[in-house]
Amino acid sequence: MRKIEHIGIAVKDLEKANSLYTALLNTEPYKTEKVASEGVSTSFFRMGDSKIELLEATSEDSAIAKFIEKRGEGIHHIAYDVEDIRAEMARLEGEGFQLLNTEPKKGADNKLVCFLHPKSSGGVLVELCQEITSEEN
Amino acid sequence: MRKIEHIGIAVKDLEKANSLYTALLNTEPYKTEKVASEGVSTSFFRMGDSKIELLEATSEDSAIAKFIEKRGEGIHHIAYDVEDIRAEMARLEGEGFQLLNTEPKKGADNKLVCFLHPKSSGGVLVELCQEITSEEN
Repeated sequence: MRKIEHIGIAVKDLEKANSLYTALLNTEPYKTEKVASEGVSTSFFRMGDSKIELLEATSEDSAIAKFIEKRGEGIHHIAYDVEDIRAEMARLEGEGFQLLNTEPKKGADNKLVCFLHPKSSGGVLVELCQEITSEEN
Repeated sequence: MRKIEHIGIAVKDLEKANSLYTALLNTEPYKTEKVASEGVSTSFFRMGDSKIELLEATSEDSAIAKFIEKRGEGIHHIAYDVEDIRAEMARLEGEGFQLLNTEPKKGADNKLVCFLHPKSSGGVLVELCQEITSEEN
């Protein structure tokens, strides 16, 4: 784990949340992106060498829709930047953490990602992120 | 807001959580600190130019004890680093955010802090942090 890549925040209405976060962070989102496979629309704000990611559900069965139904809007996950996601997945599995996907999958913002089950990581949904370089495309 | 200063995570048992996070982050806490005024024991892990702060309640009426009772262990707040906390408090109040303290107070890790009510910030408890310099001591 090299740094906090981003904090993911579940929101009901991305447009309203973009206005709120532009006022809060005093900066505008630099990117918006739909991730159809996850059923979400996202926006990203730079904050130092990390980012804030806002996530709005685009389908009722997405993880974000279920999260908001259960807990309301709020912090959904912490994503850490890793150099070699497969090596980090193997290391964490060896330490007893439960991986939610056994192979890295394509996430938002040009990343390979893997999630850890919150039950094995103190109630926190953890995401590992490795930047996709051109060689891997 | 200049960067994510830290993410605060509520834990039941700081010693166990320190072991878990040492395994997760592959680094040890660089500091532990009791903040009697907030009824918490804390530990800090460096992660890029941010930190992970673990918080265990030391009294039953602390905010962390109440949070865990209601929601279980998990992410409690996001803290942003600010250069001038009073200026940022005035700016955010003008934008319609609700401040939980009208004067900056002394927090953990040598900081002046102010919290924003989650109801005004999309369900997220937000902390502003300004490093205390020697002139202000």
